[in-house]
Amino acid sequence: MKNEIKRIGIDIGGTTIKAGLINDRGDVVDHREIETPKTPEEGINTISEMTADWQKEAEEAVGVAAPGPMDLARGLFLDPPNLPGWHDFLFVDAFQKKTGKRCLFENDANAAAVGEYIAGAGRDAKSLVYITISTGIGAGIVLNGQLLSGAQFSAGEVGNMIISEEGAAQAGLNQGAWESLASGTAMKKKVKEVFGLEEGAKELLQLVEKKDAEALRIFDRWIGHLASGIANIVHVINPEMIVLGGGVMQGKEIILPHLKPAVKRKVYASLEDSVMIEPARLGTKTGVIGASFLPLIQRL
Amino acid sequence: MKNEIKRIGIDIGGTTIKAGLINDRGDVVDHREIETPKTPEEGINTISEMTADWQKEAEEAVGVAAPGPMDLARGLFLDPPNLPGWHDFLFVDAFQKKTGKRCLFENDANAAAVGEYIAGAGRDAKSLVYITISTGIGAGIVLNGQLLSGAQFSAGEVGNMIISEEGAAQAGLNQGAWESLASGTAMKKKVKEVFGLEEGAKELLQLVEKKDAEALRIFDRWIGHLASGIANIVHVINPEMIVLGGGVMQGKEIILPHLKPAVKRKVYASLEDSVMIEPARLGTKTGVIGASFLPLIQRL
Repeated sequence: MKNEIKRIGIDIGGTTIKAGLINDRGDVVDHREIETPKTPEEGINTISEMTADWQKEAEEAVGVAAPGPMDLARGLFLDPPNLPGWHDFLFVDAFQKKTGKRCLFENDANAAAVGEYIAGAGRDAKSLVYITISTGIGAGIVLNGQLLSGAQFSAGEVGNMIISEEGAAQAGLNQGAWESLASGTAMKKKVKEVFGLEEGAKELLQLVEKKDAEALRIFDRWIGHLASGIANIVHVINPEMIVLGGGVMQGKEIILPHLKPAVKRKVYASLEDSVMIEPARLGTKTGVIGASFLPLIQRL
Repeated sequence: MKNEIKRIGIDIGGTTIKAGLINDRGDVVDHREIETPKTPEEGINTISEMTADWQKEAEEAVGVAAPGPMDLARGLFLDPPNLPGWHDFLFVDAFQKKTGKRCLFENDANAAAVGEYIAGAGRDAKSLVYITISTGIGAGIVLNGQLLSGAQFSAGEVGNMIISEEGAAQAGLNQGAWESLASGTAMKKKVKEVFGLEEGAKELLQLVEKKDAEALRIFDRWIGHLASGIANIVHVINPEMIVLGGGVMQGKEIILPHLKPAVKRKVYASLEDSVMIEPARLGTKTGVIGASFLPLIQRL
């Protein structure tokens, strides 16, 4: 289709920068990936080169997803742990000056939520909360086509929700925070502690498949913690759909059959049959796809 | 002002039905109160009589706030514990048939949130979460002028949020649910258990003012639980303002100086100085004022 609308989405990660040329249905028409440069100035040059030959066919505005924390009002990287050389950099201004293009900047969980809402698991849902479960836990919230940013752009910082006041303490988080009990890191720590294994989720899920009793016990507790946080989000926002992504969800075939009934047990009876929990559909391209749609979405 | 716009708001409670004639600034121009009839049919007749002489000067649509649970899509009372004779009654249809007026039906926490947003503590805020702390805990959420209903009209059911997985169990709620630890009922139970006193919040706060050590210990724990739930809501939604109402907040002069620093300690450092916690301003008329504004508000 010659006249198909296409947009450029950029996903800046600690290891690689991904760039995608995305059509209106969310298909990746072209895709490139390059090692993340040490500095944001180099990063902007790299992005500019990666996308140069897409310019003619793409819409003007470019969406950029990146790890937080960031100051969205100023288009500023704060101190993302995975991008040490990029701290305190006014990205949006520099990007727009270099490229002459409008830049829509957003944290990666929010961009993924937008991608899943427009072209992924939630394409038929009116509202969704996208939750990424990997090293940490974060979320993006889309309500009736609007991305919930929050007054200080901190909506969706669900990893710091308290689910267990007497629970484990972890630096930088509340005691008993969801993230310190239900993230991939939390699972990994337990697996190391109990089995002396290093790889975390992957190894635990293998043991669970073999019905190892100790592994099942750890897994069930982890599922319980994960369910608590999801139930909390359901009771605050009552979204039509919860979409789960992030590295840990590579084990979705094992996780979801345990997680769904666990969440059911923790929501009001009237919600038991209506909570929809779905795995993310866009896979590793969720960042670039979501980013490409940022120019289309309203903020709330 | 002869041409001032006025609206009728109705607040149906377990004990009384309140009716108010409210102007555009949220002032109560006229107000009536009558004992709640045993049946909804009588209730509708009563409301009709209470408001008859306001009809000429009021806008046509009438807002009605009532205790949940309710099915808002069908305008139906489900099984509100304080209105035993009103269960499973299709209120909106019956009301509209009887009065010939359009009826906007909403649960009382949501109506109060709308009232505080338009004419109360949040009149200058872009977004707020109104939390009522009394027998139970409930909330209403207004984001950028839109009332968050939720996919099953269950947004704001925050009382069932889990803040302490190993915490107290209470019928009908999750183990360690916020409501079972931080409601007026929770406080009352503790006060009875420890001091043998019957009145709960009022007596505890008196003892706190006298610096009774045991009372301070109980109070601090209760404040800690209350702060956990508020911090959770902040981390999910990041509203510009939290507005606190409900019976327990009659003790706001004692509660707020303890609560504000407790919440600060439980939110990310970047949010510490931006979380605004304010007492509700509309007092006992919040229901009728909020109800009167229901025709103005969009749902999300």
